[in-house]
Amino acid sequence: QSSVTVYGIADVLLEYRDHMNAAGDHRFGVTSGGMNTSRWGLRGSEDLGGGLKAVFQLEAEIGMDTGAAGSSFWGRQANVGLDGDFGRVIVGRSYSTTYDFMLPFDPMGYAPFYSWATSGGQIASLPRKDGMVTGVSNLIKYQGTFGPVKVGASYALGEVAGSDSAGRFFSLAGAYTAGPFSAALVLDQRNAATIAANGRYDKEKALHWGVSYDWKPVKLFLAQRVYKKELAAGGANAKSTMTWLGATWQATPAISLTPAVYFQNISSGASGTDDPRLFALRAKYELSKRTSLYAVASTAKSGDGGVVSVSRDDNGFADSQSSVGLGIQHRF
Amino acid sequence: QSSVTVYGIADVLLEYRDHMNAAGDHRFGVTSGGMNTSRWGLRGSEDLGGGLKAVFQLEAEIGMDTGAAGSSFWGRQANVGLDGDFGRVIVGRSYSTTYDFMLPFDPMGYAPFYSWATSGGQIASLPRKDGMVTGVSNLIKYQGTFGPVKVGASYALGEVAGSDSAGRFFSLAGAYTAGPFSAALVLDQRNAATIAANGRYDKEKALHWGVSYDWKPVKLFLAQRVYKKELAAGGANAKSTMTWLGATWQATPAISLTPAVYFQNISSGASGTDDPRLFALRAKYELSKRTSLYAVASTAKSGDGGVVSVSRDDNGFADSQSSVGLGIQHRF
Amino acid sequence: QSSVTVYGIADVLLEYRDHMNAAGDHRFGVTSGGMNTSRWGLRGSEDLGGGLKAVFQLEAEIGMDTGAAGSSFWGRQANVGLDGDFGRVIVGRSYSTTYDFMLPFDPMGYAPFYSWATSGGQIASLPRKDGMVTGVSNLIKYQGTFGPVKVGASYALGEVAGSDSAGRFFSLAGAYTAGPFSAALVLDQRNAATIAANGRYDKEKALHWGVSYDWKPVKLFLAQRVYKKELAAGGANAKSTMTWLGATWQATPAISLTPAVYFQNISSGASGTDDPRLFALRAKYELSKRTSLYAVASTAKSGDGGVVSVSRDDNGFADSQSSVGLGIQHRF
Repeated sequence: QSSVTVYGIADVLLEYRDHMNAAGDHRFGVTSGGMNTSRWGLRGSEDLGGGLKAVFQLEAEIGMDTGAAGSSFWGRQANVGLDGDFGRVIVGRSYSTTYDFMLPFDPMGYAPFYSWATSGGQIASLPRKDGMVTGVSNLIKYQGTFGPVKVGASYALGEVAGSDSAGRFFSLAGAYTAGPFSAALVLDQRNAATIAANGRYDKEKALHWGVSYDWKPVKLFLAQRVYKKELAAGGANAKSTMTWLGATWQATPAISLTPAVYFQNISSGASGTDDPRLFALRAKYELSKRTSLYAVASTAKSGDGGVVSVSRDDNGFADSQSSVGLGIQHRF
Repeated sequence: QSSVTVYGIADVLLEYRDHMNAAGDHRFGVTSGGMNTSRWGLRGSEDLGGGLKAVFQLEAEIGMDTGAAGSSFWGRQANVGLDGDFGRVIVGRSYSTTYDFMLPFDPMGYAPFYSWATSGGQIASLPRKDGMVTGVSNLIKYQGTFGPVKVGASYALGEVAGSDSAGRFFSLAGAYTAGPFSAALVLDQRNAATIAANGRYDKEKALHWGVSYDWKPVKLFLAQRVYKKELAAGGANAKSTMTWLGATWQATPAISLTPAVYFQNISSGASGTDDPRLFALRAKYELSKRTSLYAVASTAKSGDGGVVSVSRDDNGFADSQSSVGLGIQHRF
Repeated sequence: QSSVTVYGIADVLLEYRDHMNAAGDHRFGVTSGGMNTSRWGLRGSEDLGGGLKAVFQLEAEIGMDTGAAGSSFWGRQANVGLDGDFGRVIVGRSYSTTYDFMLPFDPMGYAPFYSWATSGGQIASLPRKDGMVTGVSNLIKYQGTFGPVKVGASYALGEVAGSDSAGRFFSLAGAYTAGPFSAALVLDQRNAATIAANGRYDKEKALHWGVSYDWKPVKLFLAQRVYKKELAAGGANAKSTMTWLGATWQATPAISLTPAVYFQNISSGASGTDDPRLFALRAKYELSKRTSLYAVASTAKSGDGGVVSVSRDDNGFADSQSSVGLGIQHRF
């Protein structure tokens, strides 16, 4: 009946990590998505004539270690829209414009093992990650490319009766590419639910910027998130910056090396401060365009004695943690 | 290995609706499945020779606004069977014969936004919908077409030890088509679980009928469900009728207009009575055979002061509710 | 983008079973997976050159009676690996080497209705099944074939911080085929979580062996699991054997008959002993290579008065149970 493409990524990492409990013990594990989150999806497009296309995408996370689905099945992508000379507009569930525009500026490509670009390592004593707004529901998203300039916007409805702004998210972004140089700037804001005391809501505001320079065979990256949370109940705003930089060195057509550093400065807020940082190194060997073997190492350190994890998703148990791992990724 | 077809519908509606809380506030929302429930599925058939085919179908609901799966993953279709000159027999999970035979007689095509053909709008003060039995588990279903006559039967096992009839559902249907005229008649009964007091069970009995006439470019529809629930614990039977009528006007090859009215008369029952009604209007613009844009408006009113919703799935908050929306649907 | 195969099995059984409650009542039911668990999946491979291939597989259970997904969505298969002259290595979620090597020695092919090869019938008064370790998470699995010899190994990480052996599973297997004769031997061990009292863990050890002889048109099967559970908290080891034997008679190219017997001797253990046994008989009529109709009958008996079920998945209610059923299976 149609031309649906079934696609995905199967990515598994064998990992050794230290400080995996309060006693400081290590753990060997099989984890899903070392380099990219394992996923599968359906996507397609239909030519409507005059350069216009109908497009849809459904994408689901896969836990390759246990076979688990994501908490919301199609939590990665579930959207439909139109694509044309004007750009692309989609409606449904998808990633924020912030996520889309900053991805090219993370040398680790948002790798679950290990990038902190989308969020910091878990600081258990400090229930803040000050992370990026990534997956968004009830979303209307636009993106267009005009010569060297790319522009994008996200608008997600809060779906709150009685307030058109509570629960709302928006993101505005621009990017510019000139030869080996690229840069992007993104502004976004997410409003929380209204609180009963004064009918106001917390506001999370973030500014992201990134630059990259492809000095072949080495590409350099530098980016930052400047984050502020204004509290509806009063009290000090929570502020932080997350800065990352790194490089990819394409040593041979098949082998690349990626060192990266992530440094978070949680500078103010009622729940405390810390300065966690992560050093990550990845070597990738491409068996083909679609299949790679990779080795990865990382070490994370808390600046102020909080407990920290190399993984953005798991809790830490001490003020430092290190890991090494071997993985395989296959794209289909 | 085989010829499996991956298919689906991605349908998203941007909707404004009033009276979305007790204070009477409006809400803007992104909802999945304005015109048809968003879904994806797998289906296939194998030629066994002599006109006989093996057939299977798996179909799952998609919440395109959040990426959620349906409560039972393959809750729409999960069945296998045989198809031949005699008709088609399938076993597993599917829609009732009632659902299949009455669908052609709803001008809105069971649209979640907005048709009440399968159930009434939510009357929160009256926990009754007196709806159609739609999706059915443990089902054996037959359908056959013989010239102008179509016949169908559903039989779903109750799977209750000690009673072959408790929990059982059956449906018997016939339809007739002669040129522009079509009509259908369906009888069904669903038994509830046995109650301890007397070993009997509630019985929901429904008679559906529908007629349509294709007076091109206008097609007219009229249908009704006559519903009765006999209570095993005694007390007055719950009775109601749901009547719907409407038309589709194919104004141009690409543009159609569909006005429809749904009127429910909840006439007796211990939990009270009401007479909710819904007026719906849809304009559809087909970008292609597979992709459409549409606009929809609706208004619902409770007859006896109960709270009512334009949506058959959401709760209402006042004795009336209205909405307008814009949507896009893509079939793949 | 790639050559993904969508595949599966849709299998539904209409079953009559007696003793389905404490009163001894029968029940008619529609159940999914009479002959094989209903499933769907995605799989693919990529030629990497030099005889090397990248392979992946995702496979999910389907409840065809209700449309339900399995408890872990991709709980059957979620793995990626490499295949070459050396054999195949995969990482992720899959079936144990034990499961893979013993499958050819069950005349009923692990049929949910009815084989006890992977586990015994439910003895409600005896919360032990002493079953096979089937699906395994965090798994590294190898299998290779060298002439008449097939070897395999599973190693699944326990992922317990502070102990590399707690929670671990391994399996080692060899099989040999010479003309009509085949034999296999498998050893495996699964460690439980550590207990606080002494830091030790329960150990389940099993030895499986099987032989088959294809005396066309009759193939004979005999196999056994010798099971022991060593308790970390002390107390008598739980011991049992499960023995099965049977035959398939290919009466005509389309019709086959399969009688089988499963006999479990739960010989020691704190929770008691029993000797349940199951007699199963299946007749299969192949409409094509991919589609079959089948009839099945079974009767189970408890040796020591415990309650027993013909099904390895459902609870029993009396010391015997019998069933007959008709099914259809379609492979896509």
